[in-house]
Amino acid sequence: MRRVSESTVHRLSLYYRSLTEMERDGHQTISSRELAGRERLTPAQVRKDLSFFGSFGTRGLGYPVKELKEKIAKILGINKEWNVALIGVGNVGSALVSYKEFPKQGFNIKMIFDNDQRKIGKTRKGILVRDVKNLAQELKKHKIDMVIIAVPAAVAQSVVNEVVAVGVNAILNFAPTNINVPPSVFLRTVNMAMELEHLSFFLVNKEGLKI
Amino acid sequence: MRRVSESTVHRLSLYYRSLTEMERDGHQTISSRELAGRERLTPAQVRKDLSFFGSFGTRGLGYPVKELKEKIAKILGINKEWNVALIGVGNVGSALVSYKEFPKQGFNIKMIFDNDQRKIGKTRKGILVRDVKNLAQELKKHKIDMVIIAVPAAVAQSVVNEVVAVGVNAILNFAPTNINVPPSVFLRTVNMAMELEHLSFFLVNKEGLKI
Repeated sequence: MRRVSESTVHRLSLYYRSLTEMERDGHQTISSRELAGRERLTPAQVRKDLSFFGSFGTRGLGYPVKELKEKIAKILGINKEWNVALIGVGNVGSALVSYKEFPKQGFNIKMIFDNDQRKIGKTRKGILVRDVKNLAQELKKHKIDMVIIAVPAAVAQSVVNEVVAVGVNAILNFAPTNINVPPSVFLRTVNMAMELEHLSFFLVNKEGLKI
Repeated sequence: MRRVSESTVHRLSLYYRSLTEMERDGHQTISSRELAGRERLTPAQVRKDLSFFGSFGTRGLGYPVKELKEKIAKILGINKEWNVALIGVGNVGSALVSYKEFPKQGFNIKMIFDNDQRKIGKTRKGILVRDVKNLAQELKKHKIDMVIIAVPAAVAQSVVNEVVAVGVNAILNFAPTNINVPPSVFLRTVNMAMELEHLSFFLVNKEGLKI
């Protein structure tokens, strides 16, 4: 795979959102300067990212909003629908089941698993909560593209091992722990505390790095 | 401020976590190769990051785990306690109130605000839910370092404006919308759908970028 950094993918997602708002507001074109300004980037960075993906603005006119948006959607794979399984429906898992941005972007939670007998057999937003004991066999029966891990840290690795064994190779992990996967599997960890560390870093260092 | 990218801060948070695990497991030193391997980075990247922050390993011995961990904690500002206000205690907000990694890292939710009369006056994990109508005056009365925004997208900008007006300048936003803040304010947006877009990007492009 041509090497694209996670930061670049992140910026593409940001551009996509800006372009969606621009399109909704009736704009036909956008300049690299406008796109950069919305995301606090430099116009040069925007032009570099977009040229890398084969999009070139027209001098004086900029980029065609609709066309660029569709192109980025295709690169990000959000021009299609994805089947997602959620494992763990505690506090974080429950928030994700109700997260409206997921279906809006084509990410459809189709299966939910938990180990809590009080939750198993009931539904969440119309989706049956299944026993995580049957995870492997249930996952095999359904065409699942991605798995979201929202289980406690102590059991996350063993759950991930099962998921990987049945052939799912895209995993979003919310368990605050280091997880190992084979090189063919893409695992991304979201850690809310790490998000706040960007804020504390800013507060501590805003008058210059103290090292 | 000496320019440090968000990716660098992110890697420092990852190093901190690896070092915490290494220390717990009784390791005294770690090589750049080991640290890189745990996070799927190159040893050169690790050495570059750490030398930037004034830490140099000893050839053949590596970095002293405890010392390096403490140094990174200081740079990230997680060697101290922070007072956090949470605005919006719906699905996402409720998950954050219970998120154990926050207090563990020194991020203490001290105030909660909502606009739902059924929630106002009650407590969540022992914290009073206050009326968001009184946001500005209540925030002024307490020493709040950071604010977490977990309100619907449509009202997020106006809530952020109030927060900025009382002088809080570190904001973590979970509302899926573009928010404007003055240059002196640090705002970071977490969008779960954007996290899944890293997975769909991987699935679409794993056999090479199709552009």
